Amino acid sequence: MINYPIKRKKQEKTNNRANLGMTLEGDIESTNQYYLNANIAVIHKKPTPIQVVNVSYPARNKAKIVEAYYKTPSTTDFNGLYKGRYIDFDAKETNSKTSMPLKNIHSHQIEHLRHVDKHGGIAFLIVHFKQFDEYFILPSHVLFKYWDLQYDEKKGRKSIPYSAFKNEAYPIQFSYSPRLDYLKVIDTYYFAKK
Amino acid sequence: MINYPIKRKKQEKTNNRANLGMTLEGDIESTNQYYLNANIAVIHKKPTPIQVVNVSYPARNKAKIVEAYYKTPSTTDFNGLYKGRYIDFDAKETNSKTSMPLKNIHSHQIEHLRHVDKHGGIAFLIVHFKQFDEYFILPSHVLFKYWDLQYDEKKGRKSIPYSAFKNEAYPIQFSYSPRLDYLKVIDTYYFAKK
Repeated sequence: MINYPIKRKKQEKTNNRANLGMTLEGDIESTNQYYLNANIAVIHKKPTPIQVVNVSYPARNKAKIVEAYYKTPSTTDFNGLYKGRYIDFDAKETNSKTSMPLKNIHSHQIEHLRHVDKHGGIAFLIVHFKQFDEYFILPSHVLFKYWDLQYDEKKGRKSIPYSAFKNEAYPIQFSYSPRLDYLKVIDTYYFAKK
Repeated sequence: MINYPIKRKKQEKTNNRANLGMTLEGDIESTNQYYLNANIAVIHKKPTPIQVVNVSYPARNKAKIVEAYYKTPSTTDFNGLYKGRYIDFDAKETNSKTSMPLKNIHSHQIEHLRHVDKHGGIAFLIVHFKQFDEYFILPSHVLFKYWDLQYDEKKGRKSIPYSAFKNEAYPIQFSYSPRLDYLKVIDTYYFAKK
């Protein structure tokens, strides 16, 4: 019984996404643009870090990069400002139905989120389980717990189980505008507590 | 009389900079690294935005970008978290002895800093007058005042006079480690007020 409306909703979502051809990153960027236009928050995606090796100047004042390589990011992809608070997160997708592999996350991203957490920022991941078309905010303390657990000889596992998302993360509803209203979730779980 | 110690200091600074071959951006990045290591703040430079047009794969798993172009940044270069507050700024250098030209600043950077200001972040510019080897924090409200003034038919000018830096901005001392302790200035002028 309780699954039925969720299934219908999932159908609609799939249609939306097919029409718009969006990725998780695109959905978040479109949501951030909505937040900016509506004067709700100032959150941006950082550019992808690229190591430029060679530049040519085929025309005056127009530099053409002819050799460059992608670098590993040293922080997360998204950060910004909401209600006077510093917000910092990364977005991860998984095709798995049972867990999110920890190899999707770089150790320096974990380090960065730990710093943010320690200095009073709001740190989390947005995780998309593609097979269920479900989105979650995974708070940093839950992320750190599973990250550290992987080095535990007995309990160690290289992923965060789907059940942890159901029990310890917060769902984000996908909708038309904004697509992924993650700040609504932040309101409920971070600001309401205070 | 009062100029003498300043001149000596300038000499030392020039030597430091020559030895280390640093730019303003490099000095700020090194300062940010110091802040991170000393657990003072989490502030990073955003990567330069690059539009990738063509990628080749000469070796497996190694993407080589063979055509790309620099994009105009849509925000400022630096942001992060200090004492629970969101910090956002850009760095500008000028060779002029009389003023900082406003053409050094993109209008969308001004828009971005206005958003940050409105949402409770700490927004400013770090400006380096190279001829004097002087560094200033220019608070956003002073920046906005001169930015808006340029559209005033009578008072309009396309630069911020050096005298405004002396009267309305806050000097940053250059030193060995950290090189540009701008958060000390932020402490005095933003946190002490509260």
